[in-house]
Amino acid sequence: AQIALERGYEERREYDARYRMLLATTRDAMVFVSASDGRIKDLNAPAASLLGAARDELTGVVFAQEFKDRRAGEFVDNLISLAMSETTSNLMVTARRSRKKLHIQPSIFRAAGERILICRLDAEADGQAVDDRLA
Amino acid sequence: AQIALERGYEERREYDARYRMLLATTRDAMVFVSASDGRIKDLNAPAASLLGAARDELTGVVFAQEFKDRRAGEFVDNLISLAMSETTSNLMVTARRSRKKLHIQPSIFRAAGERILICRLDAEADGQAVDDRLA
Repeated sequence: AQIALERGYEERREYDARYRMLLATTRDAMVFVSASDGRIKDLNAPAASLLGAARDELTGVVFAQEFKDRRAGEFVDNLISLAMSETTSNLMVTARRSRKKLHIQPSIFRAAGERILICRLDAEADGQAVDDRLA
Repeated sequence: AQIALERGYEERREYDARYRMLLATTRDAMVFVSASDGRIKDLNAPAASLLGAARDELTGVVFAQEFKDRRAGEFVDNLISLAMSETTSNLMVTARRSRKKLHIQPSIFRAAGERILICRLDAEADGQAVDDRLA
């Protein structure tokens, strides 16, 4: 059992390290959200920048609260439906802190018995944002 | 020990799942390379596409062999030096299969006693590629 335990620990450390390096290196803005409580489990620097706060300020907060006019339960349900739909549709939101208009593209997976949403955030294209301001 | 073992297993599964979902979701082309043997440990679909083969064809192959005029040992040493340098320089290579000109931006980390390079690949900007063809 000792050997198995140590091997498990080493493997866990390897996946943990790969996960952290990948999250730190990717330029896409990514947020991991628990589907059960709707809280941010983890996010990278580009995502924190789009939301308008530091990573450690955002970790653990209710994801829906970061957006205008979004209620927690309903918001997670919307993300889950989108993640499960066959079309690649996304959700359009306005970040409360940065006031940026963002598209959220969610996927869902199950890890250690928990359902987790991985959400890619994209700022609205500059051209569109300009059009909106002019309209 | 049984409880600790099971908890380790669940945690490993969670990091493994998060890692896999993140790798599948990011649009940046990413390749994980072992610093000890120079072989590709893992890569995502955008990276496979830039290199010009399927993911499973590329997993386990010597990374240097995927590029023109690159020798295995020297190539890994170059990537390690770049990863450790303070400037954000990158390596310019030509993919053997796709013939695409690529920039490699490496970072290095240690996981489970092994040094692993995480390499972000970027295709040369379209404008530059056109210039090259015209020259």
